[in-house]
Amino acid sequence: MTTAGSAGYGAYRLDGLPARVTIHEVGPRDGLQNEAAIVPVEVKAEFVARLARAGLTRIETTSFVHPKWVPQLADAAELLDRLEPAPGVRYPVLVPNERGLDRALERGVTEIAIFGSATETFARRNLNQGLESQFAMFAPVVERALRHGMKVRAYLSMCFGDPWEGAVPVEQVVRAGVRLLDLGCFELSLGDTIGVGTPGHVAALLDGFAAAGVGPERLAVHFHDTYGQALANTLAALTKGVTVVDASAGGLGGCPYAESATGNLATEDLVWMLDGLGVETGVDLTSLVETSVWLADRLGRPSVSRVVRALGPADAGGSD
Amino acid sequence: MTTAGSAGYGAYRLDGLPARVTIHEVGPRDGLQNEAAIVPVEVKAEFVARLARAGLTRIETTSFVHPKWVPQLADAAELLDRLEPAPGVRYPVLVPNERGLDRALERGVTEIAIFGSATETFARRNLNQGLESQFAMFAPVVERALRHGMKVRAYLSMCFGDPWEGAVPVEQVVRAGVRLLDLGCFELSLGDTIGVGTPGHVAALLDGFAAAGVGPERLAVHFHDTYGQALANTLAALTKGVTVVDASAGGLGGCPYAESATGNLATEDLVWMLDGLGVETGVDLTSLVETSVWLADRLGRPSVSRVVRALGPADAGGSD
Repeated sequence: MTTAGSAGYGAYRLDGLPARVTIHEVGPRDGLQNEAAIVPVEVKAEFVARLARAGLTRIETTSFVHPKWVPQLADAAELLDRLEPAPGVRYPVLVPNERGLDRALERGVTEIAIFGSATETFARRNLNQGLESQFAMFAPVVERALRHGMKVRAYLSMCFGDPWEGAVPVEQVVRAGVRLLDLGCFELSLGDTIGVGTPGHVAALLDGFAAAGVGPERLAVHFHDTYGQALANTLAALTKGVTVVDASAGGLGGCPYAESATGNLATEDLVWMLDGLGVETGVDLTSLVETSVWLADRLGRPSVSRVVRALGPADAGGSD
Repeated sequence: MTTAGSAGYGAYRLDGLPARVTIHEVGPRDGLQNEAAIVPVEVKAEFVARLARAGLTRIETTSFVHPKWVPQLADAAELLDRLEPAPGVRYPVLVPNERGLDRALERGVTEIAIFGSATETFARRNLNQGLESQFAMFAPVVERALRHGMKVRAYLSMCFGDPWEGAVPVEQVVRAGVRLLDLGCFELSLGDTIGVGTPGHVAALLDGFAAAGVGPERLAVHFHDTYGQALANTLAALTKGVTVVDASAGGLGGCPYAESATGNLATEDLVWMLDGLGVETGVDLTSLVETSVWLADRLGRPSVSRVVRALGPADAGGSD
């Protein structure tokens, strides 16, 4: 018996969880950016359109990073031109620097994201900046974006561990996160870039932000499933009042610095849990699974999402 | 940087969790029973010995089911003869009926498990009994086992959903579970045989047992990761006071009735979470990962455990 999802087995609320969660879908950007083979722009546009039809309302579509660094996203401007506006759907774009902001402004983008680091080593490797100097780099980007009426989201990476530095103190993460928010960002997404975090760590970090005056209404969580912890960590974050969760359709993506190819929390696995918990997302799981199966066929590789594997056809994306 | 586990990134306790969790390792029985190719008995014995050396103290080794039904476990008696006693390590054996009990008694087994169903359809298909008549079948088995000084564990399957019946009411599960405990079983393991459960459902079921006078100290949880929910569900169970968790090394196994091959909660993924939460298990993750890598090579198939994939060599068990 194939059901449309967990709600077919009953919906059981858990004390203290929010009634509604917004999923920030990162598949087209964070998911596809690590694909070695270039995905045609029309496939990307169709992917975004399908995600919107499945009910996702925040779809991070691409990045105005220099094509030399991420050739997969060299088609950013062309992709944006192909997106059809859908009522209530936001299409944020990652912007690494002032030149990226110029390109976003040229295309009429209304919402961007910046990508900071909680650790010194990753700031140097990924941003070519120090942990401290990154804020000076981001300040004029955010200021100009706000002046043009854009909304700006901030990512903070390596919040739970760093492949070079190991453990990352909660206080260090909170300090960096507060600095990004103070630039004028409306939301801070806390990234477990290498997937090592566990639920108590999530709670401790959210408590640390609360103690610094940053409540869960300004925070999102961004977990990677490298060690299988993403959904348990999400549950811990929801218990602490977080209502925005980053996820990637089909579990696309993964950090090139992590030890395995396993990527972001799969949107389908998240929706399965939230449906069963009676938490509203507005996302139709059947339609989302169909989208990931469709994309897996285009990528020639099966989805890593447990839900997609269980509900999709056995041969989706080729044999495993 | 490869660390020995999540504790390398700090241990962060979560309010209300137990200080210590006992892992009931089911890999050799529940994991291997679904393997199509017969695994040599010496490999199974070595697998069990390695699990014990990794610190697991409850290892369900095999089943005295009729070889016609599970050819993989036809070597049950021979495997038991090969096991070396280890201090503090228990080797329970599944016993489906009176004939199975005879064989267990012949071999000097001191701990058995029986396998009941929470639904009518699965009772008929798996036990050839009705939901009601299964208790009459188990009663003489448990009574005779207790008379011989054995400990008896009870499994209850399909506690969160059934592939034929869909939703399974909490009250129905509690009624069936109480009946099994009342036979004299020391522990009841609540199985999500098809992996559809979500954390609120877990909490509701444990609340249902508590209302019927059965506290978490008599309950264990047994989750399958078919839809990626196993670890989040485990976290919900721990929050409710459960201290015994079933898991399978490398995520071996899976229910043949489920829609995907994804099996039991992987012991490694569980240990990663518990280490990070500062919950004692006595299990050495490095040694356990090595064991699963070793077995994957023998099975010619990579482990499905996220932790094993991340920490093990990239070519373990052949390419994926």
